Amino acid sequence: MKSFAAVTVVAIGLAAAAQPARRAVTLVVVGGTVITQNAARDIISPGAVAIDGTDIVEVGPPDAIAAKYRASETIEAREEIVLPGLINTHTHAPMVIYRGLADDLALMDWLQKHIFPAEAKTVSPEMVRTGTRLAALEMIESGTTTFADMYYFEEEIAKTTVEAGLRAVLGETIIQFPVADAKTPAEGLARAERFIREFKDNGLVVPAVAPHALYTNDRATLVASAELSRRYGVPMIIHFAETEEEVRIAREQFKATPAAYLESLGFWGPNTLAAHAIWVTDEDIAILARRGVGLSHNPESNMKLASGAAPVVKYLAAGVALGLGTDGAASNNDLDMFEAMRQASFLAKHVTKDPRAVPARTALDLATVGGARALHMERLIGSLEPGKRADLITVSMRAARQTPIYDPISHLVYTTRGDDVRTTIVNGKVLMKDRQLRTLNREAVIAEANKLAVKVRDAVAR
Amino acid sequence: MKSFAAVTVVAIGLAAAAQPARRAVTLVVVGGTVITQNAARDIISPGAVAIDGTDIVEVGPPDAIAAKYRASETIEAREEIVLPGLINTHTHAPMVIYRGLADDLALMDWLQKHIFPAEAKTVSPEMVRTGTRLAALEMIESGTTTFADMYYFEEEIAKTTVEAGLRAVLGETIIQFPVADAKTPAEGLARAERFIREFKDNGLVVPAVAPHALYTNDRATLVASAELSRRYGVPMIIHFAETEEEVRIAREQFKATPAAYLESLGFWGPNTLAAHAIWVTDEDIAILARRGVGLSHNPESNMKLASGAAPVVKYLAAGVALGLGTDGAASNNDLDMFEAMRQASFLAKHVTKDPRAVPARTALDLATVGGARALHMERLIGSLEPGKRADLITVSMRAARQTPIYDPISHLVYTTRGDDVRTTIVNGKVLMKDRQLRTLNREAVIAEANKLAVKVRDAVAR
Repeated sequence: MKSFAAVTVVAIGLAAAAQPARRAVTLVVVGGTVITQNAARDIISPGAVAIDGTDIVEVGPPDAIAAKYRASETIEAREEIVLPGLINTHTHAPMVIYRGLADDLALMDWLQKHIFPAEAKTVSPEMVRTGTRLAALEMIESGTTTFADMYYFEEEIAKTTVEAGLRAVLGETIIQFPVADAKTPAEGLARAERFIREFKDNGLVVPAVAPHALYTNDRATLVASAELSRRYGVPMIIHFAETEEEVRIAREQFKATPAAYLESLGFWGPNTLAAHAIWVTDEDIAILARRGVGLSHNPESNMKLASGAAPVVKYLAAGVALGLGTDGAASNNDLDMFEAMRQASFLAKHVTKDPRAVPARTALDLATVGGARALHMERLIGSLEPGKRADLITVSMRAARQTPIYDPISHLVYTTRGDDVRTTIVNGKVLMKDRQLRTLNREAVIAEANKLAVKVRDAVAR
Repeated sequence: MKSFAAVTVVAIGLAAAAQPARRAVTLVVVGGTVITQNAARDIISPGAVAIDGTDIVEVGPPDAIAAKYRASETIEAREEIVLPGLINTHTHAPMVIYRGLADDLALMDWLQKHIFPAEAKTVSPEMVRTGTRLAALEMIESGTTTFADMYYFEEEIAKTTVEAGLRAVLGETIIQFPVADAKTPAEGLARAERFIREFKDNGLVVPAVAPHALYTNDRATLVASAELSRRYGVPMIIHFAETEEEVRIAREQFKATPAAYLESLGFWGPNTLAAHAIWVTDEDIAILARRGVGLSHNPESNMKLASGAAPVVKYLAAGVALGLGTDGAASNNDLDMFEAMRQASFLAKHVTKDPRAVPARTALDLATVGGARALHMERLIGSLEPGKRADLITVSMRAARQTPIYDPISHLVYTTRGDDVRTTIVNGKVLMKDRQLRTLNREAVIAEANKLAVKVRDAVAR
């Protein structure tokens, strides 16, 4: 014991002497509890994360990090939880502008009498910028650091996303009928190609092509979308098996399930992301697993629109790359990934009649490492590990509803909301610290959205 | 038109001259939007509520209220929504101390290996006081003004509730096996009677007797509980038809459904409140409607514990007195009634496969007027109307996730959380204003709960 103590003293002496040689890094975050989500699911309490530029350099006990690194900025999160930023695998960001415009309607009424007409009258580059800015504000404030999106004028979404500092996979929508940014699918495909070329090497945005669904695109358009995706090595996003109606259409028109039909087109690839994925057979699950398709589970949207419940437990057992999403705010009605985690757990327990289904740990996995896998970005994001991008958040645990704490992961999933997020960091850049936004002017974003909403209200009233 | 204008001028003149004669009242709340929940579901925007002592005197436009009343205190809630305080029809308040202690377990494991042992080792008058104080803090902070409870040492819950200023229906638990506050059901019944006598004329607390469930009490104890309730004219609270297992037990042991068995005992009366009510037949629903039984629907607890889904749409069609509850925080894991509203809507849509089921308006009804009916207190609470008790809350709508606003009721249900509540008023008394607590010392309550949690952790580790 004596020699051990002596060694320790020497080590401290060395550390002190070596202080000038500490490595300079841009940022250190010191937290009460660091949930790494690494392969061993290490939790370091207290813990610290050293960040240099865009990347995580080291994760460890605060003393060890302090001994090795000298940071330009230090964020003290001593009573907070530090965890990987949440990954929202399915959004239509600008649709926050339609939030609460039409609820509690039958799906076709909702789409055809409210959402499509509102979009026909109000979607524009300006609307997309204003909506995305509001969505970005909401995501930064609620701890989402990466989102996957499909909408129109996706280049405007990309510019606004980069402005806000968020990471995203952004898919330009391809659809058979005339929409605000393309009169034909060919025009949409050309637009998507220009978009992909423009953002292919962006550090935050991954451009993608997003054929809307199999029932809104013909075979040729689906195949052309897949070819475009392969030509540029970019992801492809599609709505998939969301409703029983979609299965009925596929069976009637293509004599196949949606998964089998898309398989027959050579559509599925290791870079595809399919949203919803509710109505599938065991054979379909095998196809999705074999093709390495990423899936986005959207429990809140699926419940609110009564679409059904994705077989999450089966997907997990099959090893499918499964992430969580909120869907657009016209369906859900917010972008809070903490609610998505809670709902994923609650819905799985309800449908399987098993309270052990999707425990808190699994729900957190879905929103972090699972989302990263679904977006085929698991080498870059989803956990706090050296070499990965520095996308992380700190979360307060001081609310009455979070008292007492026996298990931080239980609390993250079952009693925490987006509003508890204190600090949001993406690509090593602090976007929000102690609820103060650094890249967006909160009041201006909200005022601009409210102004646009007056026009939307007028347009739909006509 | 001229004569009308002249009349108006004269009226204004009179109002000005009459100003010294304005009626003195204790409190006026002036809000951006007042959602009355009266029979016509009037929404007054902007609106104001005049309160004198414990009661609402008038609800109307701010000018009209200002012209008639002179208030000792005025609460400006100009950009906020004012609505009736939310009614939580099923809690076990002190169990907030076990929040997150054991999740994601099979129901019997959860109860028998975790919750019951934790209770056996830690339930005491002190634990009940500390837990109730934390629960009261959480409820005040999240806009609940009335709660219905069943637990042990209910007199301690009553005292703490009065201290905190909340309204409650509090049931002393009767159970066949020895528990912390009674070795036998007879002892429990004697305790309940003392409790009822002590609090019978309290302005905030309605004492009640709470036989735990039909499977944890024999026939004689259930009948004795009902007799006690009738003798004193106080409510009776029971867990009812929560699991399929309970139905199996009833069918096996009593050759009847739970509802029919309790009917055969003469148990149901116009003062009973039954929590969960998931597994019922159409005949059971007819019994519950005929007997005027109040029901508490607990969608979050029911999903998390995989108990099933109550047939809410059928209950509403049958005119049953249906309210919403969170259940204890060991099951849910918080007491946020906004989440309960959202989940009631989501779960009903999911199970009926109809996105029109339980629209936002209905969910809000369940948490206000519905809860009041379920507690048989609809003449006193549930809406903002002259003569009713002044139980109301104000809610902020300024979050990014609440922007823009097309429909305030949609936002209350689909994008609002308890943390958005700014001001909570019960019985005319301001318990929280702009998030500042007036009856509880926030930091002390949380510190005391954290101290107790250390003991709980030690006790369950042994």
